[in-house]
Amino acid sequence: MKKGRLEAFSDGVIAIIITIMVLELRVPHGDHIRDLVPLLPVLFSYVLSFAYVGIYWNNHHHMIYAVDRINGAILWANLNFLFWLSLIPFVTSWMGENSFNRWPVILYGGVLIMAGLAYDILCTQLIKEGGRDSTLAEALGRDWKAKYSVLAYVAAIALAFVSTWISVSLYVTVAAAWFIPDRRIEKKVRGVKGSEEQ
Amino acid sequence: MKKGRLEAFSDGVIAIIITIMVLELRVPHGDHIRDLVPLLPVLFSYVLSFAYVGIYWNNHHHMIYAVDRINGAILWANLNFLFWLSLIPFVTSWMGENSFNRWPVILYGGVLIMAGLAYDILCTQLIKEGGRDSTLAEALGRDWKAKYSVLAYVAAIALAFVSTWISVSLYVTVAAAWFIPDRRIEKKVRGVKGSEEQ
Amino acid sequence: MKKGRLEAFSDGVIAIIITIMVLELRVPHGDHIRDLVPLLPVLFSYVLSFAYVGIYWNNHHHMIYAVDRINGAILWANLNFLFWLSLIPFVTSWMGENSFNRWPVILYGGVLIMAGLAYDILCTQLIKEGGRDSTLAEALGRDWKAKYSVLAYVAAIALAFVSTWISVSLYVTVAAAWFIPDRRIEKKVRGVKGSEEQ
Amino acid sequence: MKKGRLEAFSDGVIAIIITIMVLELRVPHGDHIRDLVPLLPVLFSYVLSFAYVGIYWNNHHHMIYAVDRINGAILWANLNFLFWLSLIPFVTSWMGENSFNRWPVILYGGVLIMAGLAYDILCTQLIKEGGRDSTLAEALGRDWKAKYSVLAYVAAIALAFVSTWISVSLYVTVAAAWFIPDRRIEKKVRGVKGSEEQ
Repeated sequence: MKKGRLEAFSDGVIAIIITIMVLELRVPHGDHIRDLVPLLPVLFSYVLSFAYVGIYWNNHHHMIYAVDRINGAILWANLNFLFWLSLIPFVTSWMGENSFNRWPVILYGGVLIMAGLAYDILCTQLIKEGGRDSTLAEALGRDWKAKYSVLAYVAAIALAFVSTWISVSLYVTVAAAWFIPDRRIEKKVRGVKGSEEQ
Repeated sequence: MKKGRLEAFSDGVIAIIITIMVLELRVPHGDHIRDLVPLLPVLFSYVLSFAYVGIYWNNHHHMIYAVDRINGAILWANLNFLFWLSLIPFVTSWMGENSFNRWPVILYGGVLIMAGLAYDILCTQLIKEGGRDSTLAEALGRDWKAKYSVLAYVAAIALAFVSTWISVSLYVTVAAAWFIPDRRIEKKVRGVKGSEEQ
Repeated sequence: MKKGRLEAFSDGVIAIIITIMVLELRVPHGDHIRDLVPLLPVLFSYVLSFAYVGIYWNNHHHMIYAVDRINGAILWANLNFLFWLSLIPFVTSWMGENSFNRWPVILYGGVLIMAGLAYDILCTQLIKEGGRDSTLAEALGRDWKAKYSVLAYVAAIALAFVSTWISVSLYVTVAAAWFIPDRRIEKKVRGVKGSEEQ
Repeated sequence: MKKGRLEAFSDGVIAIIITIMVLELRVPHGDHIRDLVPLLPVLFSYVLSFAYVGIYWNNHHHMIYAVDRINGAILWANLNFLFWLSLIPFVTSWMGENSFNRWPVILYGGVLIMAGLAYDILCTQLIKEGGRDSTLAEALGRDWKAKYSVLAYVAAIALAFVSTWISVSLYVTVAAAWFIPDRRIEKKVRGVKGSEEQ
């Protein structure tokens, strides 16, 4: 089965998720620059989520690129992943409109955990289809970044009972860590595809 | 006529349908976890519809993949199918916001019936273009799953006058039955395309 | 310049236009079937516009398919066409929510005229790029359907001062006339492409 | 790394941005033509932003077309560019709903500046990947249009304290200047690709 439509559908859904979040930046009634001040937490929340969804799109791009075939289980694992991503606009608004209060911050972390686990399941299904020795499995074999991220989200949820700013700092730190693109897959793929082309 | 744009347009419409449903998960005014409790039926309704739209995308993907050519009648049958799918966000919200009361549950079943019939018409047009002996016709020849689904929706509507929970259970059961990907088409296509490539 | 991205962008915009119209079908507060009755004009208005946008997508698909090259003027003519299409959700809502009163019906016709003229400009630009003798020019040379449609919209606007139901009937009639796919382009393209492949 | 998904994702996001702006054209309560009069500034604001987003899509199309490879840095520069574009619907509404008052007009210019700079960063990354001698670098080497645009936005912001109509005129002038497609890249690409094909 070709993977083109899986990519196209995922791109469509992720593009919509990343864009509809901006609809929550509601236009203020006043026309002065200070009327925008109450929107600052909403904007910050939007920036954070834009980064997270962007990171996931980027990684999804790399990961799907590394496989040649997809199957039914991969389709469902992908839909499951998209489902959890689709809840990000909701938790982003709740967190932004409540100025990063405790429960919204906790729920945000909860959705990040679920999206992270769903991404992991998708990853496992892709490796299963490609076999243990595939490029992807090798490339991801020592990937602790995803596991550390989930641990950081769990810590962020626990620490929200101390101060939500610690939690938010953790979310920002994890996002920053992911900004460094996953060069391992890129190199592996480039190496294998390069040698195949010779 | 090439089928690429039909796929791209359908993917776009289905991606938007599956994503805009989350806009109905309106952010509550309070910031406590218990403020989310009234949203639970809306969330459940969203999960159910996300599954249905995902199933339809999946099956659409398989079905279009199995044909080589499209024509004008297929384009219109596809638009008709997309029209009924596009009503799912509306009936999902109505059902969720009214906590699965009788009429919303009935209308939800009605739209599922219409989407099912529209899918069947699209299927018939694809077989007509491909000829009775085509891979698709063979693969679908004994497909009772779609017919049983429509029967289940009809039963769900009738039983909504007894208890809407029976109806909703039926919707969940049908969705669960469809989660098993349609391996018959997949195998047939793989077999035929494989032998062509030799 | 390749036409793939023009198709992809246009498909995206048209897919969003056709789908966001359903957001105007606002969920009623009550949960009885009779609470849907006030939505009937909105639904009818949605069905009509879904058909129009679907027709335009279909024709756009055929027309772009018939050309091999695009240029800057075509890109702008295409954006102009998409702009007028993008106003359809607005006029659809206004017409539906006001139960087909005079001014909304007139404005609906006005937007249809502008979309029709923009489509015509796009068509002219495509023919210019392909040359007078191209398949497209030949195929469209005797195309009176588009011209009759614009005349019908003008008549519908004038007759809205007598009865808006005449206007709406005209809109429905034109849409129905377009449902018959434009077999001329299809045949010409098939013929030319077929002979090229030999 | 192939550039197809970068194009598809960018097309998706830009298509959504350009289309959701029309959701701000809220349907008036009355049904008379004069009820549309208060919407005129909103409509004008929409037309201006539709032109800007269309121009950016057009230039993005040309620029990505001119390169053969993309890398991680390009992916992030592209996301950064899409982020600033995604704020255009917000500033468009604020400017339209406040009839082009001072602060909304200034913020609009601010977002245009940021989008312009983000586009410049993306451009630089693309040139870096392609090397100083690449077609793109040559084609863009003497491109002062982008720099003059940013200067015009800065001037528009400063002059908003005199009259916002000067600012808006500047925005319209810049948009008009960009309507002339960037023939230099087009010619260069055509030349190089043409000679490669021989």
